[in-house]
Amino acid sequence: MQAPANTPLSYEQSGVVYDLIDPLKVAAQRAAAATAPHLAGHGFTEVKASRGESAYVVDVGPFYLASIVECLGSKALVADEMQKLTGRSYYSAIAQDTIAMAVNDLITVGATPLVVQAYWAAGGSDWFGDAERAQALVAGWKAACDTCRVAWGGGETPALAGIVESGRIDLAASCTGIVNPKQRLSLGDELAAGDAIVLLASSGIHANGLSLARKLVERLPEGYLTEVEPGLAYGDALLAPTTLYSPVTEALAAAGVRVHYAANVTGHGWRKLLRHPGTFTYRITAVPKVPPVLAFIQRHAGQDDAEAYGTLNMGAGFALYVAAADAERTVEIARAQGIEAIVAGRVEAGPKRLVVEPLGIEWGDDALQLR
Amino acid sequence: MQAPANTPLSYEQSGVVYDLIDPLKVAAQRAAAATAPHLAGHGFTEVKASRGESAYVVDVGPFYLASIVECLGSKALVADEMQKLTGRSYYSAIAQDTIAMAVNDLITVGATPLVVQAYWAAGGSDWFGDAERAQALVAGWKAACDTCRVAWGGGETPALAGIVESGRIDLAASCTGIVNPKQRLSLGDELAAGDAIVLLASSGIHANGLSLARKLVERLPEGYLTEVEPGLAYGDALLAPTTLYSPVTEALAAAGVRVHYAANVTGHGWRKLLRHPGTFTYRITAVPKVPPVLAFIQRHAGQDDAEAYGTLNMGAGFALYVAAADAERTVEIARAQGIEAIVAGRVEAGPKRLVVEPLGIEWGDDALQLR
Repeated sequence: MQAPANTPLSYEQSGVVYDLIDPLKVAAQRAAAATAPHLAGHGFTEVKASRGESAYVVDVGPFYLASIVECLGSKALVADEMQKLTGRSYYSAIAQDTIAMAVNDLITVGATPLVVQAYWAAGGSDWFGDAERAQALVAGWKAACDTCRVAWGGGETPALAGIVESGRIDLAASCTGIVNPKQRLSLGDELAAGDAIVLLASSGIHANGLSLARKLVERLPEGYLTEVEPGLAYGDALLAPTTLYSPVTEALAAAGVRVHYAANVTGHGWRKLLRHPGTFTYRITAVPKVPPVLAFIQRHAGQDDAEAYGTLNMGAGFALYVAAADAERTVEIARAQGIEAIVAGRVEAGPKRLVVEPLGIEWGDDALQLR
Repeated sequence: MQAPANTPLSYEQSGVVYDLIDPLKVAAQRAAAATAPHLAGHGFTEVKASRGESAYVVDVGPFYLASIVECLGSKALVADEMQKLTGRSYYSAIAQDTIAMAVNDLITVGATPLVVQAYWAAGGSDWFGDAERAQALVAGWKAACDTCRVAWGGGETPALAGIVESGRIDLAASCTGIVNPKQRLSLGDELAAGDAIVLLASSGIHANGLSLARKLVERLPEGYLTEVEPGLAYGDALLAPTTLYSPVTEALAAAGVRVHYAANVTGHGWRKLLRHPGTFTYRITAVPKVPPVLAFIQRHAGQDDAEAYGTLNMGAGFALYVAAADAERTVEIARAQGIEAIVAGRVEAGPKRLVVEPLGIEWGDDALQLR
């Protein structure tokens, strides 16, 4: 059944109900926080500010240890549909997406990713029987590790019939890294009024907002094959692999540029720019180019700018908060790694809010509740 | 449809087809191994002997870093069936099982587990709407972290409708630890003829062999409620949580007992005792008490000892290879942690094989192909 094309499509309609997940999350966060004292028994301590951030950090003496596990989400479903329509396998890109979910979060704390582990839970052994697809997954995983210069340590490839749906695969990655030297820790202690906000370009939808993007297909005349722009099918555009940002953060460290804070722009879209726990006003004065697929989604989902930017990355995949004096160098260093970047705005003293001047959008302190 | 009760039930019949998974595994292992040189770019090196072992180890200078991601497998399906039958939630035990899968593997290399991350991928947001079950999962996860003295760093709780089956949850854990001091590394360099094999008791089926155990239910007159022994239903017996062995390995380190090698007895059952890559004969002269649920499975699945011991843990959840002079102390230290243990046999010079004398079973070099 097609919904009327002019009815706005919200994230809740696409099937993710945060109200049911959130009480569990709160309970889990409390229980998790209560386990921190165990580290003292081993001679170490938690870096408390990392609770609620994108990766967990432990002080192990000579450096900090950072770790994370991250899920791809529902993007593999798009790959499966597109494989049916085109006969091609998209799992090389999907592999990169999965690693990006972990690596791009891990680096926000200033960590160098060292080891990635693969979690590939298939709906049955037969998933692995499609050799082309399986080999694409392996090749893409390896290539993403090469880009991020991480060692692929190993992983799990369970066949979980009865838990994972037949013909599907649940993909996740864990990543372990270190913050070394310890001065690279970027949990936000150094963030200050006057800092610049540099936004790194996204390659498209990345791996966030896919529930919405899939729901939208029902409204499109040719489904996933509807053209986003001439010659580019919606499905292909959605499957552009997520940009890997660790080459940028490593290059910045090598060049001596201090990152005061970093935010991976995933769920909650640009509201993630409010992630830092402090009280600052973030003023955006320039917005990056919007990838065609995201403009297309915004248009067809009937979203206004506030909803689109509050849900999707809209061209900004990663945010770096650096001293104003380092802003232009940060942009140059990102570009040297092949990633477009702009100095998008600045941090100001003032109430906690995000002001996107070119679009006339403003979000307050209540727009992002992650902790 | 009930199969005739006297037809032996094999692992392949229970739906796991390794022939389909294995080519992918081999390709993945090769690609993963090729990423190791990236560590040199960060000033570190892989501990190559950890490839093919239960956890991946990197030399980061002052200590070794170990990491892993592990899946629970299909045990949650038993919990779901039992909840339907009894109204009780078994997810506290299931949480411990999941952590045990990661922690018990991580410690085989000599690592102290420091941080656990939770991966809880539900078939939809509504999974988390069963508050009692969700709280049991949180409480059990926390309790297992407390037992292992690890910090629960965080995790992911995605709702993956379309990938994970409705009403189900895909559970995994990642674990990061360190080998400190570095002399604790137990990848087997020190294993030698004359060493003793100490087996630590399991609590039951742990989280391995569940596909077989579930298949067997079709043959049982009262299904999961069939009594294994008076007052103990099959389903309840299956859901005894997996023993956590890190308190033992940590106590051994504190007492100065060197572990030469360790094996987590999971998939492939006792054949895991052949895991060490070297050429030794492992002679078992005493076998532990078989938990009632495993004796029950063996009997009802019509397995001979070779098949039962080659698939299930049969009462031995973890193997420690220590100097003969340390064997009795190892047993005492395990018992002081509340875990029954026996000196079960010894390592001998000779062709690679495992001889279980009390049962007249022998496995050769070809019985376990993990690398």
